Amino acid sequence: MKLYTSNRAPNPRRVRWALAEKGVTDVELVEIDIMTGEHRTADYRARVGVAHVPALELDDGETISESVAICRYLEALYPEPNLFGRDPREQAIVEMWTRRCEFYLANPLMLNVRHSHPALAALEATQVPQVADYNRVGAERFMRTLDRRLADHPFIAGDRFTIADIVATVGLDFARLVKYRPPEEYAHLARWLADCRARPAASAGA
Amino acid sequence: MKLYTSNRAPNPRRVRWALAEKGVTDVELVEIDIMTGEHRTADYRARVGVAHVPALELDDGETISESVAICRYLEALYPEPNLFGRDPREQAIVEMWTRRCEFYLANPLMLNVRHSHPALAALEATQVPQVADYNRVGAERFMRTLDRRLADHPFIAGDRFTIADIVATVGLDFARLVKYRPPEEYAHLARWLADCRARPAASAGA
Repeated sequence: MKLYTSNRAPNPRRVRWALAEKGVTDVELVEIDIMTGEHRTADYRARVGVAHVPALELDDGETISESVAICRYLEALYPEPNLFGRDPREQAIVEMWTRRCEFYLANPLMLNVRHSHPALAALEATQVPQVADYNRVGAERFMRTLDRRLADHPFIAGDRFTIADIVATVGLDFARLVKYRPPEEYAHLARWLADCRARPAASAGA
Repeated sequence: MKLYTSNRAPNPRRVRWALAEKGVTDVELVEIDIMTGEHRTADYRARVGVAHVPALELDDGETISESVAICRYLEALYPEPNLFGRDPREQAIVEMWTRRCEFYLANPLMLNVRHSHPALAALEATQVPQVADYNRVGAERFMRTLDRRLADHPFIAGDRFTIADIVATVGLDFARLVKYRPPEEYAHLARWLADCRARPAASAGA
């Protein structure tokens, strides 16, 4: 299998981190330079179907994009340590929190960066300041929910580190590009974030 | 189990549609009036954890929010007809397309409506016209990809109707609130949309 990835882009880092947690080393990494538009070339689009990284090319030629879909597929191949839950009920709780972290934290922070960082103008046809602001406000609203959750749970989905923690940490780390820091009043969030950043696998793709 | 749902809101309709495809009738429906802010009451938040519909309350008291997480959990309880794929490879393809339809079609269309429809001002602290426009443009960019996909596949994820078709159809239907219609040049998209709208289960929650 080949993973099309891009250093420092947030979504490929989710997959690299999941691979590192699982100790997987037999996936070939193919670096795509998104700053020069390599993901928009006819060759890349023909291979992947869309102009996005990451994408996982299977040995039979099928290609999977969307980072969480890739991570769930990798979990089926490399089940341990478990990142998606062990039974339908736990899987539902993990997916609920993963989706909350994507929609209300990571995606808004990514849009904030893409619409405010001068160097990322190349990735947006038009940078709109209102889009940047709107998304930062939305992300901070969700951080309050997350801070309450982390007051009595070591990790976002519960007792164990899961894909939800990867998604949330990568989102917060990406926002450091515009020197963003979560509000200091969220002490539980800060404790959890330090724990996640200290994991050996956190440096994969970062 | 109880499903907290809201008539005409797009995300609860995804779950109602999936239940109808599966012929499930033993889930109690609890209507939440989002226009009067019933999802923001202390009682609802205490029960669900966030101010969102839909949410599925399990018999043990746990509550799952996020429509696709709920649908996947229901698939574990009611496996047929299959909506999420039968093996890891097919599940990855279905999830990839579902996520593309959420992130690049349904969510942008929902944000377009929420930031442009006068009656929905109650749901947004501030309606921002630039957010509405930005999201419509993004959705139409993805419709081109979808139209190409549907040129040689009856349904979005392949040969069968799946959760990806539910997510995409519900997104396009919701945009009818602002009289939105997909560009006419996308003939394959139009054919597929008519097929999905004609399914008996499509009227559940609509």
